[in-house]
Amino acid sequence: MTEELRLWNDGAAKQALVEFITRVTEQGGPDFVPLPDRIAVFDNDGTLWAEQPMYVQGFFVLDRIKALAPRYPKWRETEPFASALKGDLTAVLAGGEAAIVELLMATHADMTTEEFEQLVADWIAMARHPRTGRLYTEMVYQPMLELLACLRANGFTVWIASAGGIEFMRPWTERVYSIPREQVIGSSIKTKYELRDGQPVLVRLPELNFIGDKAGKPVGIQQHIGRRPIAAFGNSDGDFEMLEWVTSGEGLRLGLFVHHDDSAREFAYDRASTVGKFDRGLAEAPGRGWIVASMKRDWKRVFAFETA
Amino acid sequence: MTEELRLWNDGAAKQALVEFITRVTEQGGPDFVPLPDRIAVFDNDGTLWAEQPMYVQGFFVLDRIKALAPRYPKWRETEPFASALKGDLTAVLAGGEAAIVELLMATHADMTTEEFEQLVADWIAMARHPRTGRLYTEMVYQPMLELLACLRANGFTVWIASAGGIEFMRPWTERVYSIPREQVIGSSIKTKYELRDGQPVLVRLPELNFIGDKAGKPVGIQQHIGRRPIAAFGNSDGDFEMLEWVTSGEGLRLGLFVHHDDSAREFAYDRASTVGKFDRGLAEAPGRGWIVASMKRDWKRVFAFETA
Repeated sequence: MTEELRLWNDGAAKQALVEFITRVTEQGGPDFVPLPDRIAVFDNDGTLWAEQPMYVQGFFVLDRIKALAPRYPKWRETEPFASALKGDLTAVLAGGEAAIVELLMATHADMTTEEFEQLVADWIAMARHPRTGRLYTEMVYQPMLELLACLRANGFTVWIASAGGIEFMRPWTERVYSIPREQVIGSSIKTKYELRDGQPVLVRLPELNFIGDKAGKPVGIQQHIGRRPIAAFGNSDGDFEMLEWVTSGEGLRLGLFVHHDDSAREFAYDRASTVGKFDRGLAEAPGRGWIVASMKRDWKRVFAFETA
Repeated sequence: MTEELRLWNDGAAKQALVEFITRVTEQGGPDFVPLPDRIAVFDNDGTLWAEQPMYVQGFFVLDRIKALAPRYPKWRETEPFASALKGDLTAVLAGGEAAIVELLMATHADMTTEEFEQLVADWIAMARHPRTGRLYTEMVYQPMLELLACLRANGFTVWIASAGGIEFMRPWTERVYSIPREQVIGSSIKTKYELRDGQPVLVRLPELNFIGDKAGKPVGIQQHIGRRPIAAFGNSDGDFEMLEWVTSGEGLRLGLFVHHDDSAREFAYDRASTVGKFDRGLAEAPGRGWIVASMKRDWKRVFAFETA
């Protein structure tokens, strides 16, 4: 197993991962966990792929606003659209949650699930990260991919539990993470079944259905999985309740935060960041027995495209 | 495969099932479906187990009302509780959906998910069908269990999509149907994450979250699975939209209704029934290419406890 996690440097994080996996898979051992209960949940943004300088779905929203602007000339004079069209994120965020929801609804609703799927698939195949110029799907953390594979090889079922949109992730999680659509949990808007030209469709409505952040993560996990996972992986305070929920169950449990402390290979941010704020989790992790993995110290490599 | 479906009599229904499974699993054939897309959805009440003279969850509600009544003396004078305590279903149903929701909330909410799970597990281990005196978990249809096993043996993933409560089913679907909790879709109330005595719990709130009936079935299927199944099995008009959604996808599809026409071994009901009304589905099935399986003609045996 040490061999399987070869992108992880020797240290406390790797040791904790190896020990946990070894103990829960040891037939007849005191910490053995049967296959159906070997469930691990992973946050997505900042845990499996980069979330700086902004959540990838935020870039999708901005690109959609630009693409739709010709149809809505008034957007040039109306907030939050005017700022979004200028790419002025600070001004957009000044509008608070209401502004974000307005942009989300303008770009995510009033189309069928299949139309939205196509939009996401087309965008993710082309859009590139503003700093590296790489496809967003290349901005995934190789040590985490390796960990996903290692868990699967040890009988785990691996789920995503993200605050991001469930239907924004599903078009590419299978290809990028080998996580199938039905193992993705995330925020959603309501949908409605109807017939269009005699063909049934699911129409995406401009109405929030579920927000899978913070205390919403355990709620979404229960809704989709129906049992408490034994391991949880996150990187921000948005994952706090998920780690709390998972690690307070009976038997051996694992909680791990990825700490973004590598400004050279990725980004360095924690307590003071707007995106992926990591404050309470960082402070309380040691007392709760949660592992804080340092991107800088614990990972031999971050991205696949890195030169040695 | 014909051997695997030995509880199905030779006839159009069995032939359609065998042909469908053969064609979608034929490597290189024109109808071949890769493993991740081999998804079948099953209604529960009336499709996998008996729903007469009332949905099993209805009996659970009545038993819970009786158990809770000493704590709420006013229930003896307040509808719909008074009628529920008398076991007068007609009077309860006269109160319409509002009465049913009131009884549901009084019996399903204001406790943690773990407490509810325990209530259901304890009840389902003891409660017995009013006509047969059998445990409800013995009231499952053997030919359908056989079909579930046959589908799984052919690489299908099998889900339940029921209007019943998701958390009412999960405690026993794995044991009874070999369908794990994460493959159960159903109606739900909202839950809230909170700390009680320092321990995190999910509290069930007296507020509807999702109704998985009729046009809600495709919505729930998309929310949980994220792809359109290729086969759907139901028995009532509550399953109409599910069959419509599933069978209107591209490629070979299968829709099947179980027709309850066997008053000797089970029950006989369709167009005029309050529980499991089967009217539009029965009328439109032939035109839509959906199979109607006759319980009487197509099944060699209904229940495991039947004497030959």
